[in-house]
Amino acid sequence: MELWLREIESDDLHIGIRVSRVLHRERSRYQDIAIVDTPGLGRMLVLDGIVQTTVKDEFAYHEMIVHVPLMSHPSPRRVLVIGGGDGGTVRELVKHVSVERVDLVEIDERVVALCREYLPELSASFDDPRVNIIIGDGIEHVSNVRGEYDVVIVDSSDPVGPAVGLFREEFYRSVYRALDDDGLMVAQTESPFGTPQLVRDVAAAVGRAFPPHAYLYLANVPVYSLGDWSFTIGSKGPDPRTPRLPEGASLPFATRYYTLEVHRAAFALPRYVQELLDLA
Amino acid sequence: MELWLREIESDDLHIGIRVSRVLHRERSRYQDIAIVDTPGLGRMLVLDGIVQTTVKDEFAYHEMIVHVPLMSHPSPRRVLVIGGGDGGTVRELVKHVSVERVDLVEIDERVVALCREYLPELSASFDDPRVNIIIGDGIEHVSNVRGEYDVVIVDSSDPVGPAVGLFREEFYRSVYRALDDDGLMVAQTESPFGTPQLVRDVAAAVGRAFPPHAYLYLANVPVYSLGDWSFTIGSKGPDPRTPRLPEGASLPFATRYYTLEVHRAAFALPRYVQELLDLA
Repeated sequence: MELWLREIESDDLHIGIRVSRVLHRERSRYQDIAIVDTPGLGRMLVLDGIVQTTVKDEFAYHEMIVHVPLMSHPSPRRVLVIGGGDGGTVRELVKHVSVERVDLVEIDERVVALCREYLPELSASFDDPRVNIIIGDGIEHVSNVRGEYDVVIVDSSDPVGPAVGLFREEFYRSVYRALDDDGLMVAQTESPFGTPQLVRDVAAAVGRAFPPHAYLYLANVPVYSLGDWSFTIGSKGPDPRTPRLPEGASLPFATRYYTLEVHRAAFALPRYVQELLDLA
Repeated sequence: MELWLREIESDDLHIGIRVSRVLHRERSRYQDIAIVDTPGLGRMLVLDGIVQTTVKDEFAYHEMIVHVPLMSHPSPRRVLVIGGGDGGTVRELVKHVSVERVDLVEIDERVVALCREYLPELSASFDDPRVNIIIGDGIEHVSNVRGEYDVVIVDSSDPVGPAVGLFREEFYRSVYRALDDDGLMVAQTESPFGTPQLVRDVAAAVGRAFPPHAYLYLANVPVYSLGDWSFTIGSKGPDPRTPRLPEGASLPFATRYYTLEVHRAAFALPRYVQELLDLA
């Protein structure tokens, strides 16, 4: 039997991925969760039919959502991750020796449990003593703290289902208050080619919540949609376009995607993206 | 009836694109040619089942294959395009006022004729008086000229079928001889994520043919494979990583993807691509 996962990008576009084995499938309180093995992209986590992470290409996403803000802050010590239940973001965070505490607030405890069991390449750092896993609502967690974090990372799924509230201006304002004086926030904000209006609206909302430093940057995460993936970063202090180490310096940790040159280059937006954001 | 084009990326990965209408289909001497309308990506040219160009995203590819070499050369006058039968590359070339002559050598006259008829957004510049369309074999054309061109652009299809010979070192050496003393060559060289070994081999071949300046650069062309698309550039004179206009200057023509900042940023390669090319 041939088994194919058909990921629906839009009414007019599908991606078909050959599946060799369905390792686990369940309906949690929040979503349909599947862990599958694929010959082309390795093991994958699939939520509500959408590929969240694949062993073959997750490094691009996780390195770019973590190292851009962490290398922009002079000395990041306290980090909050909202979502990120697969563990890839935490794995990159604990590479930074300045980091003393990582709070991960994930709404669906079944995602954390299943990624611990089936995706150790991503979730192994959940056992790092600096990491504190909180099963709960990220929006509520953020609204209860003031000046508590140096960096907040919004590592959410798409803006359908449980993640909808993580794409609203009210939430970004709440993150602003949860950050210390020179803190930074970064959020994954979808594809400017695939969903331009969403990217435009979210970038505008982050811009209003984070004067004076709010920028979009891009990375290529092959399995996420067609087109580059965007991240929107807001800063209360440092300019996130410039990493704290000079060009040519060697990184104090290993990467497969991020370099200091890639960090700077990620902010050079194609003209159509500039126009989408009214920057042209 | 639902009509879908299934583009086969590999044995394990397909892309499905909804088709509203098949405008034309034929078997030419060289390949299966189709022109189709799609609701998601606009009108498309499909050769042997592989999407060559879509009206919605072709600008990224054509601007990046043209403006990077043209903006690196101090004064490009004579340009050769090998392949490029859809006309998008020529359309971008004639934006450069220094260009006096464009020779386009396309092997399949049916591609040119059909793109003239069905894709005027791409092919309209075929009628520019500076453009000279030659139906013939690009490899043979290049081997017959010496020091004739300032820029050679290899705008080929994938390395199967008629384009195979355009990915060989012998061909790049022949292009080197066809270029004037400070000439540049650029070739489209597939996806480092999708076909890493091919990219590695081609970059090495261009490197041997073009001392001292051979570099890979990347652009995101959404419909081409998963992952960024690569171009390999070789130069006999100018360093192609630096455009001749300074950062912040305004471009003398309109673009939708290319900017001077994007030009520089395109050479900042993710670590895994550096490693693939033995540059890390």
